[in-house]
Amino acid sequence: MQLLHTPADMQQWALAQRSRGIRLGCVPTMGCLHDGHLALVREAQTRADQVVVTIFVNPTQFGPHEDFHRYPRPLADDLARCRKAGVSAVFLPQPAQMYAADHSIYVVEEQLGNGLCGAARPGHFRGVCTVVAKLFNLTLPHVAIFGQKDYQQAAIIRRMVRDLDFPIEVVVAPIVREPDGLALSSRNRYLSTDERQRARGLSQALRLVRDAGETDAAAVCQRVQTLLTETYQLRVDYVAAVDGQTLQPVPSLQPGVAIILAAFAGTTRLIDNTLLGHPTDSAQGIPAP
Amino acid sequence: MQLLHTPADMQQWALAQRSRGIRLGCVPTMGCLHDGHLALVREAQTRADQVVVTIFVNPTQFGPHEDFHRYPRPLADDLARCRKAGVSAVFLPQPAQMYAADHSIYVVEEQLGNGLCGAARPGHFRGVCTVVAKLFNLTLPHVAIFGQKDYQQAAIIRRMVRDLDFPIEVVVAPIVREPDGLALSSRNRYLSTDERQRARGLSQALRLVRDAGETDAAAVCQRVQTLLTETYQLRVDYVAAVDGQTLQPVPSLQPGVAIILAAFAGTTRLIDNTLLGHPTDSAQGIPAP
Repeated sequence: MQLLHTPADMQQWALAQRSRGIRLGCVPTMGCLHDGHLALVREAQTRADQVVVTIFVNPTQFGPHEDFHRYPRPLADDLARCRKAGVSAVFLPQPAQMYAADHSIYVVEEQLGNGLCGAARPGHFRGVCTVVAKLFNLTLPHVAIFGQKDYQQAAIIRRMVRDLDFPIEVVVAPIVREPDGLALSSRNRYLSTDERQRARGLSQALRLVRDAGETDAAAVCQRVQTLLTETYQLRVDYVAAVDGQTLQPVPSLQPGVAIILAAFAGTTRLIDNTLLGHPTDSAQGIPAP
Repeated sequence: MQLLHTPADMQQWALAQRSRGIRLGCVPTMGCLHDGHLALVREAQTRADQVVVTIFVNPTQFGPHEDFHRYPRPLADDLARCRKAGVSAVFLPQPAQMYAADHSIYVVEEQLGNGLCGAARPGHFRGVCTVVAKLFNLTLPHVAIFGQKDYQQAAIIRRMVRDLDFPIEVVVAPIVREPDGLALSSRNRYLSTDERQRARGLSQALRLVRDAGETDAAAVCQRVQTLLTETYQLRVDYVAAVDGQTLQPVPSLQPGVAIILAAFAGTTRLIDNTLLGHPTDSAQGIPAP
């Protein structure tokens, strides 16, 4: 497994592989790899000859009061997992190598990123789009895999690839969940035992939506909000029923609608979602409470 | 010579060439090709196996009161010139093929583009960066050639390539001038006979700067402003002495400083510049009045 530390080395490696006719897959991550990331790697391996994992905790997508500095960075574990998974190359740059002191170019999205997580985290998706554009140009993949857990992010990346004409296929892979339904996330390790119990509320709320058969979006969102707040004692950031493509709010639930939510367990912000009518959506497999 | 009308065809052609190990050069233009463009093509041909010229009058870089609709589009002439110059492929998309109705991704630059032409043309460089990023991803060149006449644009494109890590070498080629010094521009054809005479003022002003030996930037800019306004009866947009890399104003003239100016002859906005101490800067060859 190749370790590539600098942007120049990464790009040179990718160009060399491509010139030999090798099909490249890329899985961009912030490290602290869990089975959700490894499922993305496996998905990439079915679609490419060689897979690059990028590990970069990108400062520009964190707000000033967010967890950039304490974000976990278990590098030795991450590399062992990549090696075991058969990853071909890992790109692990430092922030100063990725951003010149006078960096002045940004990639911005002006529709899909305005609401939901974008409303709570100003500048977040600008940071995401900019770093993913850079990672695409450095890893030069034929196919890139993103997780459905970050639903809004995946929609924005798809949009970026379409609108900037990157020659890249974007694949969004299903959420991987704990046995009790909690979506895997690197931030789950912040949770206390009590918070971990209550964090089940996010996936339970999505199960409720899928089971209830209610189609009025406002009523469903209200029920979810009440469940999260009262039963699971979570502080809700948002609960929304949106068109799965445009991310615009919809009045009624039907196939193609995404239910997306964000809530805090203590100080830890968690997200989850389900895409209604989607055959491989993992929310179908959430166990009863 | 291949004519490529759609983004998909363009990208497919470029990928096919690259997979055969062919080195590609790209010359992005808005058409209405003149000898300045053809010099860019020749420069590209010295650095690449095959050259793509893109011809696209990009609506998003024109302001609401600018000349998008009347911008000249002599397509048959343009293609004849490309053919004669040995261009391998011409990409000529329509705006609706380049921009989806719900296009929402933009590339923005937040330092170099704030002053000079950026101040007079809000949104212009955002339009330029976005379309050039698209054209890069569609033509997938190893090297791209821009003209020094659009000095600020060239600096911004270089910055974009650096900050977004495009695997592309950017080359900035010298200004090509008429015998009397006027920088070639597609917009010169807007000029009346009288305006064309007065348009010599821009290059004459640059000659004055180079010949005068004065090093106080404010004094030089004032003399240029007076010359343009009083002798040549041009309406000055700006005259600036800036660091050739950062485009920040400088107090004194020395090698590496660019003198950049924009002025109106009638309703036609013209630009010109000179980079002091640069051996191939065309302003050295401007004839005496």
